[in-house]
Amino acid sequence: MSDTEKRSGRAGRAGRGRSGGGATSRRAARSGGSSEQLKYITRNIPYFETLNEEALEIIEYNAETVLEEIGIEFRDDPEALQILKDNGCDVQGERVRFPRGLARQWCAHAPSEFTQHARNTERSVVIGGKNTVFAPVYGPPFVRDLDGGRRYATIEDFRNFVKLTYSMPALHHSGGTVCEPVDIPVNKRHLDMLYTHMRFSDKPYMGSVTAPERAEDSIAMSKLVFGDDFVENNTVMISLINANSPMTFDDTMLGALKVYARHMQACIITPFILAGAMAPVTAAGVMAQSLAEGMAGIAFAQMVRKGAPVVMGSFASSISMQSGAPTFGTPEPALVLYGMAQLARRLGVPFRSGGSLCGSKLPDAQAAYESANTILPTSLAGVNFTLHAAGWLEGGLISSYEKLVMDADQLGMMQRMLEGYDMTENGQAMDALREVGPGNHFLGCAHTQANFETAFFRSNIADNNSFEQWESEGSLDAYQRANAVVKKTLEQYVAPDLDASIDEALNEFIIKKKDSMPDAFT
Amino acid sequence: MSDTEKRSGRAGRAGRGRSGGGATSRRAARSGGSSEQLKYITRNIPYFETLNEEALEIIEYNAETVLEEIGIEFRDDPEALQILKDNGCDVQGERVRFPRGLARQWCAHAPSEFTQHARNTERSVVIGGKNTVFAPVYGPPFVRDLDGGRRYATIEDFRNFVKLTYSMPALHHSGGTVCEPVDIPVNKRHLDMLYTHMRFSDKPYMGSVTAPERAEDSIAMSKLVFGDDFVENNTVMISLINANSPMTFDDTMLGALKVYARHMQACIITPFILAGAMAPVTAAGVMAQSLAEGMAGIAFAQMVRKGAPVVMGSFASSISMQSGAPTFGTPEPALVLYGMAQLARRLGVPFRSGGSLCGSKLPDAQAAYESANTILPTSLAGVNFTLHAAGWLEGGLISSYEKLVMDADQLGMMQRMLEGYDMTENGQAMDALREVGPGNHFLGCAHTQANFETAFFRSNIADNNSFEQWESEGSLDAYQRANAVVKKTLEQYVAPDLDASIDEALNEFIIKKKDSMPDAFT
Repeated sequence: MSDTEKRSGRAGRAGRGRSGGGATSRRAARSGGSSEQLKYITRNIPYFETLNEEALEIIEYNAETVLEEIGIEFRDDPEALQILKDNGCDVQGERVRFPRGLARQWCAHAPSEFTQHARNTERSVVIGGKNTVFAPVYGPPFVRDLDGGRRYATIEDFRNFVKLTYSMPALHHSGGTVCEPVDIPVNKRHLDMLYTHMRFSDKPYMGSVTAPERAEDSIAMSKLVFGDDFVENNTVMISLINANSPMTFDDTMLGALKVYARHMQACIITPFILAGAMAPVTAAGVMAQSLAEGMAGIAFAQMVRKGAPVVMGSFASSISMQSGAPTFGTPEPALVLYGMAQLARRLGVPFRSGGSLCGSKLPDAQAAYESANTILPTSLAGVNFTLHAAGWLEGGLISSYEKLVMDADQLGMMQRMLEGYDMTENGQAMDALREVGPGNHFLGCAHTQANFETAFFRSNIADNNSFEQWESEGSLDAYQRANAVVKKTLEQYVAPDLDASIDEALNEFIIKKKDSMPDAFT
Repeated sequence: MSDTEKRSGRAGRAGRGRSGGGATSRRAARSGGSSEQLKYITRNIPYFETLNEEALEIIEYNAETVLEEIGIEFRDDPEALQILKDNGCDVQGERVRFPRGLARQWCAHAPSEFTQHARNTERSVVIGGKNTVFAPVYGPPFVRDLDGGRRYATIEDFRNFVKLTYSMPALHHSGGTVCEPVDIPVNKRHLDMLYTHMRFSDKPYMGSVTAPERAEDSIAMSKLVFGDDFVENNTVMISLINANSPMTFDDTMLGALKVYARHMQACIITPFILAGAMAPVTAAGVMAQSLAEGMAGIAFAQMVRKGAPVVMGSFASSISMQSGAPTFGTPEPALVLYGMAQLARRLGVPFRSGGSLCGSKLPDAQAAYESANTILPTSLAGVNFTLHAAGWLEGGLISSYEKLVMDADQLGMMQRMLEGYDMTENGQAMDALREVGPGNHFLGCAHTQANFETAFFRSNIADNNSFEQWESEGSLDAYQRANAVVKKTLEQYVAPDLDASIDEALNEFIIKKKDSMPDAFT
């Protein structure tokens, strides 16, 4: 990273995030990616709940059976095994069995919602309850755009995705590994990634989980931004702890989990499941196993530190019967998602799932159908934290520039939908009906004039002009229009303020850390 | 239409529609457009209901206020005004006011569900209750495909859309004006359209509504297929009666409605609303007006003949604030859709809404996002009859070949989703969890082997192969792959049997009718 790049931030945007709700929020929500940042969502319509009481009880019973009878493996981490044993588990080798009800009792210590603080306090998010937070894609080694095609991701791409995410009003969170900057050695990568989130965005961000010492670095760097005391007493990071499904946690993830839980930083415990490979092929089977794994991880986190903020995750996809490849946007994962959201609410912990997932190689109709088939259930089910809410392509192998802005446009729609109905007198519009009457039109009536600007969500990707106008403008498809939005957004990007002394401290920390490491990829 | 084409049907497919449910149905639902016809959907998961009791009561109260205070115009139809007056309405000129509660009382005579018979009895559909029926696009003057681009529709296109619809397992209904065959004079067009549905499909179809005498022709032709008695005593057609919103019905629609209601053929009464133009800009305003218009139309149908089958429709779109053009797949119409479904259930009549609506000019990501944002709410809300469920493009100006098969693939997913959960012992999959255990995989276990074939929906449009394989196959996008599916489906199409004497009688009827008409377009 060049010095120029590090110092490229300009002043003047620090107060940009004011969007407490109401008309301003609605206006922003309705004008796509070109307007004010939106506050995280607090839903105003019911959850869509698909499992009845009997089915819920069966799945909860089966999850307890998995925990009690089959057990969960905690691998290569003697400390973890000791903690589990000390707290009532039956530990045989690395196999840990939870007496029926024990894991659920421990889960009760987890907060049902918590605040993740951002350095811009207006961007802090509340995770849990009726709230939904959208975060971008996580993890792809490749990027794609219309101009450069498919290629390995670099730190420049990473920076671009952070800037784009910062600029999209309905992305409430800066995310974590928005792509893998493969041009930086693995052992140093987390430092540059964290710095990029801290410098080029002021939205909340995620910590590193690829090794316990990288989790420690994440905390150290966060202390430089937020102050030591603040970090020890508040949650400023959320991090992704995947179970090695089926029914296994490994030492890497357990190591990071212990670091974060001890510092009261949030962990998402996610069974990562391709049904048929890491779990049974049926929805009820996937749910019982996911619940068991999630409860085991959360219970363990609470044994490490009571009250540590956690999120129960569920990542479940079906697989292709032809190729064995994961498939997305199909009906079975949506059924799992709805059910798991109910099970998490009954457990009393925040829930993570969904996103704008797809298997398509391009941001085409397949990508959009599949993404919509995931993000709409995500929104209706009441997911609290949504990773991969924008930019995911090719089964998570690619971070797509154009799809990020397409998906972000959709997220604005989700936010508007979750606002629900205006049932005030103005919303009921009886005056308009009386004024206009049969056979006339509403375009000019007082009510329409007064409400028109904020009435409908305004997409910045969709083209609704006449065929003739669309043709005269070059017959562009959504992919091409999104490409223009990407370019314009990056061009107009202005970095949020960051105190110069903090910036300097972060750079000193990174240089010192890097100097202490071997150069080779590890 | 050539004689060869009329006689091209071959035997052997008459019994093809056996798909009562269970494993066969699931297998078909999971293998996209290449398999057995599916029965109409009977949902097995709850409705998604977004309005609370208070909001429902407010909207119902406001609808009664519209009917009582503002009133509905019934234009250019003195007979209709007399019927309304004779049955308790206050008629001033063409303005008809319904005393509070009167319209709802008349609506109570309508059946809450009814069977629409198909000539293949296995394809008959039940409209209402927990059932959902998917029908294709209705009305576009243009067609589009990848090879020929955008062009006026012809009777050949019409025939192709009927054949494609016949071949798609999750399209339960042949529809009506799948496109406008503009190469046939307007006064003769309905005859060729009806014949095409009767000859090239055995799914249920829609009647003509563009003039009362065309409704009479529709009944006469149906009698040739089903027999006189059967048609007089059963519903074999469903037809689309749009209100001229706001708060107006015209003589053309009223004329067709009277013909169909008197013959116990079903009518869908649909307020067609672009919010901001034909109704207020707010969801609560659109719902009150739509409910009032729907209740007025349904009450009138019941005054014409008590017990006549009717469906309450709602077609509501938002409009672009820039161009005034209708927009689709936005959050506001989805909120209207969920609410109207609840209001229709409380009224006790079947409900029509939704579809795979979009404003896009091409079957690209915009088209797919918008369509998914409509068909998923359609499915979750519990819509009973879904027009435009496949093939709609460019705000309804275009019937798209490729989008028809893309959407039909999605409809298979909706059908699978609405089947809900398998909570049997096999569905719970505890044996699989016990057999596999921590850290192993499920691919080879007995439960996976036994369930794999029917476990997941199989798309015939999505590509889930590796990037390398996809690239070696030409890097095709979904539009291109759908084009291949269209061609293959038309190539493999085999017409259902139709008794030669029926075919002859239909052709005689059409020739005689056409001979009696002036040649000019009217």
